[in-house]
Amino acid sequence: MTALARFSINQMTVKQLSLPELAAACGASGVTQVGLWRAPVQKYGLRATAKLMRDAGLTVTTLCRGGFFTAIEPRARAVALADNRRAVEEAATLGTDTLVLVSGGLPAGSRDLPGARERVADALAELGPYAERHGVRLALEVLHPMYAADRCVVSTLAQALDLAERFPAHQVGVAVDTYHIWWDDQAPAQIARAGAGGRIHAFQLADWITPLPEGVLNGRGQIGDGAIDMRAWRGHMEAAGYTGPIEVELFNEELWARDGREVLAETLKRFRGAFL
Amino acid sequence: MTALARFSINQMTVKQLSLPELAAACGASGVTQVGLWRAPVQKYGLRATAKLMRDAGLTVTTLCRGGFFTAIEPRARAVALADNRRAVEEAATLGTDTLVLVSGGLPAGSRDLPGARERVADALAELGPYAERHGVRLALEVLHPMYAADRCVVSTLAQALDLAERFPAHQVGVAVDTYHIWWDDQAPAQIARAGAGGRIHAFQLADWITPLPEGVLNGRGQIGDGAIDMRAWRGHMEAAGYTGPIEVELFNEELWARDGREVLAETLKRFRGAFL
Repeated sequence: MTALARFSINQMTVKQLSLPELAAACGASGVTQVGLWRAPVQKYGLRATAKLMRDAGLTVTTLCRGGFFTAIEPRARAVALADNRRAVEEAATLGTDTLVLVSGGLPAGSRDLPGARERVADALAELGPYAERHGVRLALEVLHPMYAADRCVVSTLAQALDLAERFPAHQVGVAVDTYHIWWDDQAPAQIARAGAGGRIHAFQLADWITPLPEGVLNGRGQIGDGAIDMRAWRGHMEAAGYTGPIEVELFNEELWARDGREVLAETLKRFRGAFL
Repeated sequence: MTALARFSINQMTVKQLSLPELAAACGASGVTQVGLWRAPVQKYGLRATAKLMRDAGLTVTTLCRGGFFTAIEPRARAVALADNRRAVEEAATLGTDTLVLVSGGLPAGSRDLPGARERVADALAELGPYAERHGVRLALEVLHPMYAADRCVVSTLAQALDLAERFPAHQVGVAVDTYHIWWDDQAPAQIARAGAGGRIHAFQLADWITPLPEGVLNGRGQIGDGAIDMRAWRGHMEAAGYTGPIEVELFNEELWARDGREVLAETLKRFRGAFL
């Protein structure tokens, strides 16, 4: 399979492009797969986006993102679950089989990480069957431990699999992103575990560059610019039997300030360099 | 044992204080233990610092820090080892039995984390016996995974113990800092492992507050201000048999901008609150 056949551009990498601009840029560069985000899809219109993608011959590899399951208060939990059911429906309408979930951080004033992780499991128990009925798999994303307090209490692949394995693999798997796991010497073994269980539901790339920016959100590096041995991670994923799409998802202020088509072309070139 | 008997103020927490000011502030507040850093000690004078501490009745709990062992080039490695031998000698002169080591990050252009970790082991093999002859134990510090590229390739207690256990416990153990391990659900079991092996050579506290500042170095929170369940970690350390000093080591621009004596008093108060 060629690099291009595996490549998917996550919309966030080129968020300066509107959806029609993104579709046109993909067409011009031969890209056939995209990962989408809920907010811009909702802004453009769910059905209009689905039609745009179909007409452009684009496959939607994932929808980002549901999640944020860690609230304690029942009303807030109900609101979060209702929003996640809508995210499942949106994924189905867009024709993607994968909804990426970011678990959520510690609620204000809480220091109970194990409790928060259990509330994630509770939400998955409700959402998994609902997703299955819509033909959608949930991909629980591991986020780097630096996000454990304010964004995602699931910090390692091992933790994510411990949660996912409570449910059927066609309901709940994991999203593997190099940015979040590259430091973890246990991750290769956990990728093998995920592959053996049929639980690798998404694979994303970003490189690790320093210094990290304030808030540590928007400093993800272009492929090849950072510390991550992309070929090694590709090898671990291949050894685990993963043959699905590989999304490049970069949150990077400098990339967002540039021409989006140029960033897409550069990203594809870097991807080929790392994966050929 | 009272909280005060366990408390040690790491010099970095109140780096606005000169060494004589620090000694005086400790005397005024009943603090009897300090963790020191090499640069301010060298500036004041090694023997002068040792005398100042003795005269003030202060015990030096650790010297921070040696390490930075990951260079590839032989000359750079020799320079690092020579500097670490000096750090051992400084620790001995100051009367502390513990030298804290930060491993170092990836060398420029390298993406080989396993290789860098092996070079840390190579350095420990040379430095351990030298430290033993000087009555000094090496405390390999785990740093949060967000520092893996540029500061410390040892990101979990499990990794640190995998390295330390290649050597005798009286030569090489680990430094446990809540700031670096709080997110890790495997850390309690690893603390037990470290305790059983007699390898907990230092225990430091800092709290996790967000948003992280640019560069993620100087945003460590005052005890009680953040996401970390200090009592739970104290419990894990007690269960592991650790009865040694507990240093509070905060890198925090806001604390550094305040009166150092006031920060010391606040830190001691917060420590009592978390540990009584």
